[in-house]
Amino acid sequence: MTELSLVAALAKRLPRIGDDCAIVRHGDEDLLFTTDLLVEDVHFRRTERTAADVGYRALARSLSDIAAMGGDPRWATVALALPPWATERWVAGFYRGLLSLAARHKTEIVGGDFSRAPVLIADVMVCGTVPTGQALRRDRARPGDLIYVSGPLGRGKWRFVPRLALGRQLRALGATSCMDLSDGLSLDLHRLTLASRVSAELNTLPLARGASLEEGFHRGEDYELLFTLPASVKPPRGAHAVGKVTRGKVGRVTYNGVLVTPDGHDHFRSQPQPDPRTA
Amino acid sequence: MTELSLVAALAKRLPRIGDDCAIVRHGDEDLLFTTDLLVEDVHFRRTERTAADVGYRALARSLSDIAAMGGDPRWATVALALPPWATERWVAGFYRGLLSLAARHKTEIVGGDFSRAPVLIADVMVCGTVPTGQALRRDRARPGDLIYVSGPLGRGKWRFVPRLALGRQLRALGATSCMDLSDGLSLDLHRLTLASRVSAELNTLPLARGASLEEGFHRGEDYELLFTLPASVKPPRGAHAVGKVTRGKVGRVTYNGVLVTPDGHDHFRSQPQPDPRTA
Repeated sequence: MTELSLVAALAKRLPRIGDDCAIVRHGDEDLLFTTDLLVEDVHFRRTERTAADVGYRALARSLSDIAAMGGDPRWATVALALPPWATERWVAGFYRGLLSLAARHKTEIVGGDFSRAPVLIADVMVCGTVPTGQALRRDRARPGDLIYVSGPLGRGKWRFVPRLALGRQLRALGATSCMDLSDGLSLDLHRLTLASRVSAELNTLPLARGASLEEGFHRGEDYELLFTLPASVKPPRGAHAVGKVTRGKVGRVTYNGVLVTPDGHDHFRSQPQPDPRTA
Repeated sequence: MTELSLVAALAKRLPRIGDDCAIVRHGDEDLLFTTDLLVEDVHFRRTERTAADVGYRALARSLSDIAAMGGDPRWATVALALPPWATERWVAGFYRGLLSLAARHKTEIVGGDFSRAPVLIADVMVCGTVPTGQALRRDRARPGDLIYVSGPLGRGKWRFVPRLALGRQLRALGATSCMDLSDGLSLDLHRLTLASRVSAELNTLPLARGASLEEGFHRGEDYELLFTLPASVKPPRGAHAVGKVTRGKVGRVTYNGVLVTPDGHDHFRSQPQPDPRTA
Protein backbone atom coordinates (compact mmCIF):
# COMPACT_ATOMS: atom_id res chain seq x y z
CA MET A 1 0.00 0.00 0.00
CA THR A 2 1.50 3.35 -1.00
CA GLU A 3 0.82 6.61 0.78
CA LEU A 4 -0.93 7.86 -2.34
CA SER A 5 -3.39 4.95 -2.46
CA LEU A 6 -3.96 5.09 1.28
CA VAL A 7 -4.68 8.81 1.20
CA ALA A 8 -6.87 8.34 -1.86
CA ALA A 9 -8.86 5.63 -0.06
CA LEU A 10 -9.26 7.78 3.03
CA ALA A 11 -10.03 10.94 1.10
CA LYS A 12 -13.33 9.38 0.08
CA ARG A 13 -14.54 9.58 3.64
CA LEU A 14 -12.30 12.36 4.91
CA PRO A 15 -12.87 15.10 2.37
CA ARG A 16 -10.34 17.51 3.85
CA ILE A 17 -7.32 15.23 3.61
CA GLY A 18 -5.43 15.95 0.42
CA ASP A 19 -4.36 19.54 0.86
CA ASP A 20 -1.32 20.50 2.91
CA CYS A 21 -3.61 21.47 5.76
CA ALA A 22 -7.24 21.12 6.62
CA ILE A 23 -9.14 24.42 6.61
CA VAL A 24 -12.00 24.96 9.04
CA ARG A 25 -14.00 28.06 9.82
CA HIS A 26 -13.93 29.35 13.40
CA GLY A 27 -15.08 32.79 14.43
CA ASP A 28 -13.70 35.46 12.14
CA GLU A 29 -10.69 33.48 10.89
CA ASP A 30 -10.07 30.08 9.37
CA LEU A 31 -8.09 27.51 11.30
CA LEU A 32 -5.50 25.33 9.55
CA PHE A 33 -4.57 21.90 10.93
CA THR A 34 -1.62 19.78 9.91
CA THR A 35 0.30 16.93 11.50
CA ASP A 36 3.61 15.30 10.54
CA LEU A 37 5.33 12.17 11.75
CA LEU A 38 9.10 11.93 12.02
CA VAL A 39 10.22 8.34 12.51
CA GLU A 40 13.68 7.01 13.35
CA ASP A 41 15.12 4.85 10.55
CA VAL A 42 12.45 6.12 8.15
CA HIS A 43 13.15 9.86 8.24
CA PHE A 44 16.45 9.96 10.08
CA ARG A 45 19.14 7.84 11.70
CA ARG A 46 20.01 8.78 15.23
CA THR A 47 23.74 8.37 14.66
CA GLU A 48 23.57 11.03 11.94
CA ARG A 49 21.44 13.71 13.62
CA THR A 50 21.70 15.64 16.84
CA ALA A 51 18.67 15.75 19.10
CA ALA A 52 18.27 19.46 18.32
CA ASP A 53 18.33 18.71 14.58
CA VAL A 54 15.55 16.16 15.00
CA GLY A 55 13.45 18.56 17.08
CA TYR A 56 13.97 21.38 14.61
CA ARG A 57 12.91 19.31 11.65
CA ALA A 58 9.93 17.69 13.41
CA LEU A 59 8.36 21.13 13.75
CA ALA A 60 9.72 22.60 10.50
CA ARG A 61 7.82 20.10 8.36
CA SER A 62 4.47 21.08 9.86
CA LEU A 63 5.33 24.77 9.65
CA SER A 64 6.05 24.26 5.95
CA ASP A 65 2.49 22.99 5.50
CA ILE A 66 1.15 26.15 7.14
CA ALA A 67 3.41 28.24 4.87
CA ALA A 68 1.98 26.46 1.83
CA MET A 69 -1.50 27.63 2.85
CA GLY A 70 -0.41 31.24 3.41
CA GLY A 71 -1.19 30.96 7.11
CA ASP A 72 0.31 32.00 10.42
CA PRO A 73 1.33 29.14 12.73
CA ARG A 74 -0.09 29.68 16.20
CA TRP A 75 -0.22 26.54 18.37
CA ALA A 76 1.46 23.15 18.29
CA THR A 77 1.29 19.85 20.13
CA VAL A 78 4.22 17.46 20.30
CA ALA A 79 3.82 13.71 20.86
CA LEU A 80 7.04 11.86 21.48
CA ALA A 81 7.52 8.10 21.65
CA LEU A 82 10.92 7.41 23.19
CA PRO A 83 13.10 4.31 22.78
CA PRO A 84 15.50 3.17 25.51
CA TRP A 85 18.45 5.07 23.98
CA ALA A 86 16.69 8.45 24.31
CA THR A 87 18.08 9.98 27.48
CA GLU A 88 16.68 12.96 29.33
CA ARG A 89 19.55 14.94 27.82
CA TRP A 90 18.46 13.87 24.32
CA VAL A 91 14.88 14.93 24.99
CA ALA A 92 16.07 18.30 26.29
CA GLY A 93 18.10 18.72 23.08
CA PHE A 94 15.10 17.78 20.97
CA TYR A 95 13.02 20.47 22.65
CA ARG A 96 15.82 23.00 22.38
CA GLY A 97 15.86 22.55 18.60
CA LEU A 98 12.10 22.57 18.36
CA LEU A 99 11.56 25.55 20.65
CA SER A 100 14.17 27.69 18.92
CA LEU A 101 12.23 27.33 15.66
CA ALA A 102 8.89 27.76 17.41
CA ALA A 103 10.03 31.03 18.96
CA ARG A 104 11.23 32.34 15.60
CA HIS A 105 7.78 31.79 14.12
CA LYS A 106 5.70 32.72 17.17
CA THR A 107 4.33 29.22 17.53
CA GLU A 108 3.29 28.25 21.02
CA ILE A 109 3.78 24.65 22.16
CA VAL A 110 0.53 24.05 24.02
CA GLY A 111 0.56 20.35 24.76
CA GLY A 112 2.11 17.00 24.27
CA ASP A 113 2.26 13.36 25.18
CA PHE A 114 5.01 10.86 25.88
CA SER A 115 5.25 7.13 25.55
CA ARG A 116 7.81 4.42 25.11
CA ALA A 117 8.44 2.77 21.73
CA PRO A 118 11.16 0.70 20.06
CA VAL A 119 12.23 3.64 17.88
CA LEU A 120 11.92 7.37 18.27
CA ILE A 121 8.73 8.82 16.80
CA ALA A 122 7.70 12.46 16.93
CA ASP A 123 4.31 13.65 15.79
CA VAL A 124 3.95 17.41 15.61
CA MET A 125 0.54 18.96 15.01
CA VAL A 126 0.41 22.64 14.16
CA CYS A 127 -2.73 24.75 14.14
CA GLY A 128 -2.50 28.02 12.26
CA THR A 129 -4.82 30.81 11.28
CA VAL A 130 -5.58 32.59 8.03
CA PRO A 131 -8.14 35.25 7.10
CA THR A 132 -11.48 33.60 6.27
CA GLY A 133 -11.58 32.09 2.80
CA GLN A 134 -8.05 33.21 1.93
CA ALA A 135 -6.02 30.06 2.51
CA LEU A 136 -3.90 29.08 -0.47
CA ARG A 137 -4.91 25.74 -1.92
CA ARG A 138 -3.65 23.34 -4.53
CA ASP A 139 -6.86 23.05 -6.50
CA ARG A 140 -7.21 26.51 -8.03
CA ALA A 141 -4.45 26.68 -10.65
CA ARG A 142 -5.89 27.81 -14.00
CA PRO A 143 -4.71 27.35 -17.58
CA GLY A 144 -2.49 30.28 -18.47
CA ASP A 145 -1.08 30.70 -14.95
CA LEU A 146 2.69 30.62 -14.61
CA ILE A 147 4.33 28.02 -12.36
CA TYR A 148 7.07 28.97 -9.89
CA VAL A 149 9.29 27.38 -7.28
CA SER A 150 10.78 29.39 -4.43
CA GLY A 151 14.35 28.09 -4.70
CA PRO A 152 16.73 25.65 -6.37
CA LEU A 153 15.80 21.99 -5.99
CA GLY A 154 17.43 18.61 -5.44
CA ARG A 155 19.52 19.22 -2.31
CA GLY A 156 17.11 19.95 0.50
CA LYS A 157 18.73 21.13 3.71
CA TRP A 158 17.97 19.20 6.89
CA ARG A 159 17.39 22.45 8.78
CA PHE A 160 15.42 24.12 6.03
CA VAL A 161 13.67 27.43 6.68
CA PRO A 162 9.88 27.11 6.41
CA ARG A 163 8.71 29.64 3.80
CA LEU A 164 6.18 31.32 6.05
CA ALA A 165 6.87 34.90 4.98
CA LEU A 166 6.66 33.92 1.33
CA GLY A 167 3.39 32.06 1.90
CA ARG A 168 1.81 35.17 3.40
CA GLN A 169 3.15 37.25 0.52
CA LEU A 170 1.68 34.82 -2.02
CA ARG A 171 -1.69 35.03 -0.32
CA ALA A 172 -1.58 38.82 -0.59
CA LEU A 173 -0.58 38.55 -4.27
CA GLY A 174 -3.52 36.26 -5.07
CA ALA A 175 -1.56 33.11 -5.92
CA THR A 176 -3.99 30.68 -7.57
CA SER A 177 -2.38 27.62 -5.99
CA CYS A 178 0.44 26.71 -3.65
CA MET A 179 1.93 23.68 -1.93
CA ASP A 180 5.22 22.80 -0.31
CA LEU A 181 7.70 20.52 -2.05
CA SER A 182 7.98 17.71 0.46
CA ASP A 183 7.91 14.70 -1.85
CA GLY A 184 9.72 15.93 -4.96
CA LEU A 185 8.53 18.23 -7.75
CA SER A 186 7.40 15.39 -10.01
CA LEU A 187 5.00 13.93 -7.44
CA ASP A 188 3.92 17.21 -5.86
CA LEU A 189 3.22 18.96 -9.17
CA HIS A 190 1.32 15.87 -10.29
CA ARG A 191 -0.84 16.23 -7.17
CA LEU A 192 -1.34 19.95 -7.80
CA THR A 193 -2.41 19.40 -11.41
CA LEU A 194 -4.71 16.55 -10.37
CA ALA A 195 -6.36 18.72 -7.71
CA SER A 196 -6.73 21.66 -10.11
CA ARG A 197 -7.76 19.43 -13.04
CA VAL A 198 -5.10 20.87 -15.35
CA SER A 199 -1.80 19.96 -17.03
CA ALA A 200 1.63 21.52 -16.53
CA GLU A 201 4.31 22.27 -19.08
CA LEU A 202 7.74 22.88 -17.59
CA ASN A 203 10.64 24.27 -19.56
CA THR A 204 13.33 24.90 -16.95
CA LEU A 205 14.25 23.86 -13.44
CA PRO A 206 16.55 25.67 -10.98
CA LEU A 207 18.92 23.08 -9.54
CA ALA A 208 20.82 23.30 -6.28
CA ARG A 209 24.60 23.17 -6.63
CA GLY A 210 25.61 19.59 -7.37
CA ALA A 211 22.06 18.32 -7.94
CA SER A 212 21.19 16.36 -11.08
CA LEU A 213 18.02 17.00 -13.07
CA GLU A 214 16.80 13.64 -11.78
CA GLU A 215 17.27 14.82 -8.21
CA GLY A 216 15.65 18.15 -8.97
CA PHE A 217 12.53 16.37 -10.16
CA HIS A 218 12.25 13.37 -7.94
CA ARG A 219 14.13 13.86 -4.73
CA GLY A 220 11.84 14.94 -1.92
CA GLU A 221 12.24 17.24 1.03
CA ASP A 222 13.28 20.49 -0.60
CA TYR A 223 10.49 22.26 1.33
CA GLU A 224 10.47 25.10 -1.16
CA LEU A 225 7.05 26.39 -2.22
CA LEU A 226 5.55 25.40 -5.57
CA PHE A 227 2.94 27.94 -6.66
CA THR A 228 1.06 29.45 -9.57
CA LEU A 229 0.29 33.08 -10.32
CA PRO A 230 -1.75 34.69 -13.09
CA ALA A 231 0.63 35.73 -15.89
CA SER A 232 -0.18 39.37 -15.12
CA VAL A 233 1.14 39.20 -11.56
CA LYS A 234 4.77 40.07 -10.86
CA PRO A 235 6.27 37.20 -8.84
CA PRO A 236 7.97 37.73 -5.48
CA ARG A 237 11.73 38.29 -5.41
CA GLY A 238 13.68 35.06 -5.67
CA ALA A 239 10.91 33.05 -7.31
CA HIS A 240 11.93 30.93 -10.29
CA ALA A 241 9.46 30.60 -13.16
CA VAL A 242 9.54 26.99 -14.34
CA GLY A 243 6.65 26.69 -16.77
CA LYS A 244 2.94 27.19 -17.24
CA VAL A 245 -0.44 25.66 -16.47
CA THR A 246 -2.28 24.31 -19.52
CA ARG A 247 -5.51 22.60 -20.40
CA GLY A 248 -5.04 19.01 -21.39
CA LYS A 249 -4.93 15.67 -19.67
CA VAL A 250 -5.55 16.17 -15.97
CA GLY A 251 -2.42 15.47 -13.89
CA ARG A 252 -0.06 15.39 -16.87
CA VAL A 253 3.32 17.07 -16.34
CA THR A 254 5.85 17.54 -19.16
CA TYR A 255 9.38 18.95 -19.21
CA ASN A 256 10.31 20.36 -22.60
CA GLY A 257 7.76 18.06 -24.16
CA VAL A 258 8.85 14.91 -22.30
CA LEU A 259 6.37 13.29 -19.91
CA VAL A 260 7.49 13.51 -16.26
CA THR A 261 6.41 10.52 -14.19
CA PRO A 262 5.37 11.15 -10.57
CA ASP A 263 8.28 9.27 -9.00
CA GLY A 264 8.79 11.42 -5.96
CA HIS A 265 9.55 10.46 -2.44
CA ASP A 266 6.74 8.46 -0.82
CA HIS A 267 7.44 8.30 2.90
CA PHE A 268 5.23 5.36 3.40
CA ARG A 269 6.82 3.21 0.75
CA SER A 270 10.38 4.43 0.95
CA GLN A 271 13.34 2.89 2.71
CA PRO A 272 15.42 4.85 5.21
CA GLN A 273 17.14 7.63 3.33
CA PRO A 274 20.20 6.15 1.64
CA ASP A 275 21.65 9.60 1.15
CA PRO A 276 20.91 11.77 4.17
CA ARG A 277 21.02 15.54 3.76
CA THR A 278 24.13 16.93 5.28
CA ALA A 279 23.77 20.51 4.11
CA MET B 1 12.93 9.17 33.66
CA THR B 2 9.26 9.01 34.63
CA GLU B 3 6.46 10.80 32.81
CA LEU B 4 5.93 12.92 35.90
CA SER B 5 9.53 14.16 35.99
CA LEU B 6 9.60 14.68 32.23
CA VAL B 7 6.39 16.69 32.30
CA ALA B 8 7.60 18.61 35.32
CA ALA B 9 10.84 19.46 33.53
CA LEU B 10 9.01 20.57 30.41
CA ALA B 11 6.33 22.44 32.31
CA LYS B 12 8.97 24.98 33.30
CA ARG B 13 9.19 26.14 29.71
CA LEU B 14 5.81 25.01 28.45
CA PRO B 15 3.45 26.57 30.93
CA ARG B 16 0.30 25.04 29.46
CA ILE B 17 1.34 21.41 29.76
CA GLY B 18 -0.02 19.95 32.96
CA ASP B 19 -3.75 20.21 32.50
CA ASP B 20 -5.74 17.69 30.46
CA CYS B 21 -5.81 20.16 27.59
CA ALA B 22 -4.19 23.41 26.71
CA ILE B 23 -6.57 26.36 26.67
CA VAL B 24 -6.04 29.20 24.20
CA ARG B 25 -8.23 32.17 23.37
CA HIS B 26 -9.43 32.50 19.78
CA GLY B 27 -12.24 34.78 18.67
CA ASP B 28 -15.23 34.49 20.95
CA GLU B 29 -14.47 30.99 22.24
CA ASP B 30 -11.53 29.22 23.82
CA LEU B 31 -9.80 26.41 21.95
CA LEU B 32 -8.71 23.25 23.74
CA PHE B 33 -5.84 21.14 22.42
CA THR B 34 -4.90 17.65 23.49
CA THR B 35 -2.92 14.82 21.94
CA ASP B 36 -2.59 11.15 22.95
CA LEU B 37 -0.26 8.40 21.80
CA LEU B 38 -1.40 4.79 21.55
CA VAL B 39 1.56 2.45 21.11
CA GLU B 40 1.57 -1.27 20.31
CA ASP B 41 3.05 -3.36 23.15
CA VAL B 42 2.79 -0.38 25.50
CA HIS B 43 -0.96 0.31 25.39
CA PHE B 44 -2.19 -2.77 23.56
CA ARG B 45 -1.16 -6.06 21.99
CA ARG B 46 -2.32 -6.58 18.47
CA THR B 47 -3.29 -10.18 19.06
CA GLU B 48 -5.72 -9.04 21.75
CA ARG B 49 -7.45 -6.13 20.02
CA THR B 50 -9.33 -5.71 16.78
CA ALA B 51 -8.33 -2.86 14.50
CA ALA B 52 -11.66 -1.15 15.24
CA ASP B 53 -11.01 -1.42 19.00
CA VAL B 54 -7.63 0.25 18.59
CA GLY B 55 -9.10 3.03 16.43
CA TYR B 56 -11.94 3.59 18.90
CA ARG B 57 -9.64 3.88 21.87
CA ALA B 58 -7.05 6.06 20.11
CA LEU B 59 -9.71 8.75 19.71
CA ALA B 60 -11.58 8.04 22.96
CA ARG B 61 -8.58 8.96 25.11
CA SER B 62 -8.28 12.41 23.56
CA LEU B 63 -12.05 12.94 23.75
CA SER B 64 -11.85 12.13 27.45
CA ASP B 65 -9.40 15.01 27.89
CA ILE B 66 -11.86 17.36 26.21
CA ALA B 67 -14.63 16.01 28.46
CA ALA B 68 -12.49 16.76 31.51
CA MET B 69 -12.34 20.42 30.45
CA GLY B 70 -16.10 20.67 29.86
CA GLY B 71 -15.52 21.25 26.14
CA ASP B 72 -17.00 20.19 22.84
CA PRO B 73 -14.67 18.19 20.57
CA ARG B 74 -14.63 19.68 17.09
CA TRP B 75 -11.65 18.64 14.95
CA ALA B 76 -9.09 15.86 15.09
CA THR B 77 -5.92 14.82 13.30
CA VAL B 78 -4.74 11.22 13.17
CA ALA B 79 -1.09 10.26 12.65
CA LEU B 80 -0.53 6.58 12.08
CA ALA B 81 2.83 4.78 11.95
CA LEU B 82 2.27 1.35 10.45
CA PRO B 83 4.37 -1.78 10.91
CA PRO B 84 4.61 -4.47 8.21
CA TRP B 85 1.77 -6.52 9.74
CA ALA B 86 -0.77 -3.69 9.36
CA THR B 87 -2.67 -4.46 6.18
CA GLU B 88 -4.93 -2.11 4.27
CA ARG B 89 -7.81 -4.06 5.80
CA TRP B 90 -6.46 -3.40 9.29
CA VAL B 91 -6.15 0.32 8.59
CA ALA B 92 -9.72 0.39 7.26
CA GLY B 93 -10.87 -1.32 10.48
CA PHE B 94 -8.94 1.17 12.59
CA TYR B 95 -10.68 4.06 10.85
CA ARG B 96 -14.05 2.35 11.12
CA GLY B 97 -13.68 2.19 14.90
CA LEU B 98 -12.35 5.72 15.11
CA LEU B 99 -14.91 7.27 12.77
CA SER B 100 -17.87 5.61 14.51
CA LEU B 101 -16.86 7.32 17.75
CA ALA B 102 -16.05 10.59 15.98
CA ALA B 103 -19.51 10.67 14.39
CA ARG B 104 -21.18 10.06 17.74
CA HIS B 105 -19.45 13.09 19.22
CA LYS B 106 -19.55 15.33 16.13
CA THR B 107 -15.78 15.36 15.81
CA GLU B 108 -14.48 15.95 12.31
CA ILE B 109 -11.28 14.19 11.23
CA VAL B 110 -9.55 16.97 9.35
CA GLY B 111 -6.12 15.62 8.63
CA GLY B 112 -3.52 12.99 9.18
CA ASP B 113 -0.18 11.54 8.31
CA PHE B 114 1.16 8.06 7.66
CA SER B 115 4.57 6.51 8.04
CA ARG B 116 6.18 3.16 8.52
CA ALA B 117 7.48 2.02 11.92
CA PRO B 118 8.43 -1.23 13.66
CA VAL B 119 5.28 -1.15 15.80
CA LEU B 120 1.91 0.47 15.38
CA ILE B 121 1.68 3.97 16.82
CA ALA B 122 -1.35 6.23 16.62
CA ASP B 123 -1.25 9.85 17.73
CA VAL B 124 -4.64 11.53 17.87
CA MET B 125 -4.86 15.27 18.43
CA VAL B 126 -8.26 16.72 19.23
CA CYS B 127 -9.12 20.41 19.19
CA GLY B 128 -12.28 21.37 21.02
CA THR B 129 -14.06 24.56 21.96
CA VAL B 130 -15.47 25.93 25.18
CA PRO B 131 -17.05 29.28 26.05
CA THR B 132 -14.35 31.82 26.86
CA GLY B 133 -12.92 31.43 30.34
CA GLN B 134 -15.24 28.55 31.27
CA ALA B 135 -13.00 25.52 30.73
CA LEU B 136 -12.86 23.21 33.73
CA ARG B 137 -9.40 22.99 35.21
CA ARG B 138 -7.62 20.99 37.83
CA ASP B 139 -6.21 23.90 39.80
CA ARG B 140 -9.32 25.49 41.31
CA ALA B 141 -10.48 23.00 43.94
CA ARG B 142 -11.07 24.79 47.25
CA PRO B 143 -11.06 23.58 50.85
CA GLY B 144 -14.61 22.54 51.74
CA ASP B 145 -15.48 21.34 48.21
CA LEU B 146 -16.73 17.79 47.91
CA ILE B 147 -14.88 15.30 45.71
CA TYR B 148 -16.73 13.04 43.26
CA VAL B 149 -16.02 10.37 40.68
CA SER B 150 -18.42 9.66 37.83
CA GLY B 151 -18.47 5.88 38.14
CA PRO B 152 -17.04 2.80 39.83
CA LEU B 153 -13.28 2.36 39.51
CA GLY B 154 -10.73 -0.37 39.01
CA ARG B 155 -12.00 -2.16 35.90
CA GLY B 156 -11.85 0.33 33.04
CA LYS B 157 -13.50 -0.82 29.83
CA TRP B 158 -11.40 -0.84 26.66
CA ARG B 159 -14.21 0.86 24.72
CA PHE B 160 -15.08 3.33 27.45
CA VAL B 161 -17.54 6.12 26.75
CA PRO B 162 -15.87 9.56 27.00
CA ARG B 163 -17.83 11.59 29.56
CA LEU B 164 -18.49 14.53 27.27
CA ALA B 165 -22.10 15.16 28.30
CA LEU B 166 -21.13 15.05 31.98
CA GLY B 167 -18.23 17.43 31.36
CA ARG B 168 -20.56 20.00 29.83
CA GLN B 169 -22.99 19.54 32.71
CA LEU B 170 -20.21 20.07 35.28
CA ARG B 171 -19.20 23.26 33.53
CA ALA B 172 -22.78 24.51 33.76
CA LEU B 173 -22.91 23.52 37.46
CA GLY B 174 -19.74 25.46 38.24
CA ALA B 175 -17.50 22.54 39.16
CA THR B 176 -14.38 23.95 40.81
CA SER B 177 -12.07 21.34 39.28
CA CYS B 178 -12.20 18.36 36.97
CA MET B 179 -9.89 15.87 35.30
CA ASP B 180 -10.24 12.46 33.73
CA LEU B 181 -9.00 9.36 35.51
CA SER B 182 -6.47 8.05 33.04
CA ASP B 183 -3.66 7.09 35.39
CA GLY B 184 -5.49 5.88 38.49
CA LEU B 185 -7.20 7.85 41.24
CA SER B 186 -4.16 7.90 43.52
CA LEU B 187 -1.92 9.60 40.95
CA ASP B 188 -4.61 11.76 39.33
CA LEU B 189 -6.00 13.08 42.62
CA HIS B 190 -2.44 13.76 43.75
CA ARG B 191 -2.01 15.87 40.61
CA LEU B 192 -5.28 17.68 41.20
CA THR B 193 -4.42 18.51 44.80
CA LEU B 194 -0.93 19.64 43.78
CA ALA B 195 -2.36 21.91 41.07
CA SER B 196 -4.99 23.33 43.43
CA ARG B 197 -2.56 23.53 46.37
CA VAL B 198 -4.86 21.61 48.70
CA SER B 199 -5.20 18.22 50.43
CA ALA B 200 -7.88 15.56 49.93
CA GLU B 201 -9.56 13.35 52.50
CA LEU B 202 -11.33 10.35 51.02
CA ASN B 203 -13.69 8.16 53.01
CA THR B 204 -15.22 5.82 50.42
CA LEU B 205 -14.53 4.56 46.91
CA PRO B 206 -17.03 3.03 44.46
CA LEU B 207 -15.44 -0.12 43.08
CA ALA B 208 -16.31 -1.86 39.83
CA ARG B 209 -17.55 -5.44 40.23
CA GLY B 210 -14.56 -7.62 41.00
CA ALA B 211 -12.12 -4.76 41.55
CA SER B 212 -10.00 -4.59 44.70
CA LEU B 213 -9.47 -1.39 46.66
CA GLU B 214 -5.88 -1.47 45.39
CA GLU B 215 -7.14 -1.53 41.80
CA GLY B 216 -9.68 1.19 42.50
CA PHE B 217 -6.91 3.47 43.72
CA HIS B 218 -3.99 2.64 41.53
CA ARG B 219 -5.10 1.02 38.31
CA GLY B 220 -5.26 3.51 35.46
CA GLU B 221 -7.54 3.90 32.50
CA ASP B 222 -10.95 4.11 34.10
CA TYR B 223 -11.61 7.33 32.15
CA GLU B 224 -14.26 8.40 34.60
CA LEU B 225 -14.25 12.05 35.62
CA LEU B 226 -12.81 13.15 38.95
CA PHE B 227 -14.27 16.51 40.00
CA THR B 228 -15.02 18.85 42.86
CA LEU B 229 -18.15 20.85 43.59
CA PRO B 230 -18.94 23.36 46.31
CA ALA B 231 -20.78 21.53 49.12
CA SER B 232 -23.90 23.58 48.32
CA VAL B 233 -24.19 22.23 44.74
CA LYS B 234 -26.27 19.15 44.06
CA PRO B 235 -24.12 16.70 42.12
CA PRO B 236 -25.19 15.26 38.75
CA ARG B 237 -27.05 11.95 38.73
CA GLY B 238 -24.73 8.98 39.00
CA ALA B 239 -21.89 10.89 40.67
CA HIS B 240 -20.30 9.21 43.67
CA ALA B 241 -19.15 11.43 46.54
CA VAL B 242 -15.80 10.10 47.75
CA GLY B 243 -14.49 12.73 50.14
CA LYS B 244 -13.64 16.37 50.59
CA VAL B 245 -11.02 18.96 49.81
CA THR B 246 -9.11 20.25 52.84
CA ARG B 247 -6.38 22.65 53.75
CA GLY B 248 -3.20 20.94 54.76
CA LYS B 249 -0.10 19.62 53.08
CA VAL B 250 -0.32 20.35 49.37
CA GLY B 251 -0.76 17.17 47.34
CA ARG B 252 -1.55 14.97 50.34
CA VAL B 253 -4.32 12.40 49.82
CA THR B 254 -5.68 10.23 52.65
CA TYR B 255 -8.26 7.44 52.71
CA ASN B 256 -9.94 7.10 56.09
CA GLY B 257 -6.89 8.68 57.66
CA VAL B 258 -4.31 6.54 55.85
CA LEU B 259 -1.90 8.23 53.44
CA VAL B 260 -2.49 7.22 49.80
CA THR B 261 0.71 7.15 47.75
CA PRO B 262 0.51 8.29 44.11
CA ASP B 263 1.24 4.89 42.58
CA GLY B 264 -0.92 5.15 39.52
CA HIS B 265 -0.26 4.05 36.02
CA ASP B 266 2.59 5.94 34.41
CA HIS B 267 2.54 5.19 30.69
CA PHE B 268 6.08 6.21 30.21
CA ARG B 269 7.51 3.98 32.91
CA SER B 270 5.09 1.08 32.71
CA GLN B 271 5.49 -2.26 31.03
CA PRO B 272 2.93 -3.57 28.53
CA GLN B 273 -0.28 -4.15 30.40
CA PRO B 274 0.00 -7.51 32.14
CA ASP B 275 -3.75 -7.58 32.61
CA PRO B 276 -5.45 -6.11 29.54
CA ARG B 277 -9.01 -4.86 29.85
CA THR B 278 -11.40 -7.30 28.29
CA ALA B 279 -14.65 -5.69 29.40
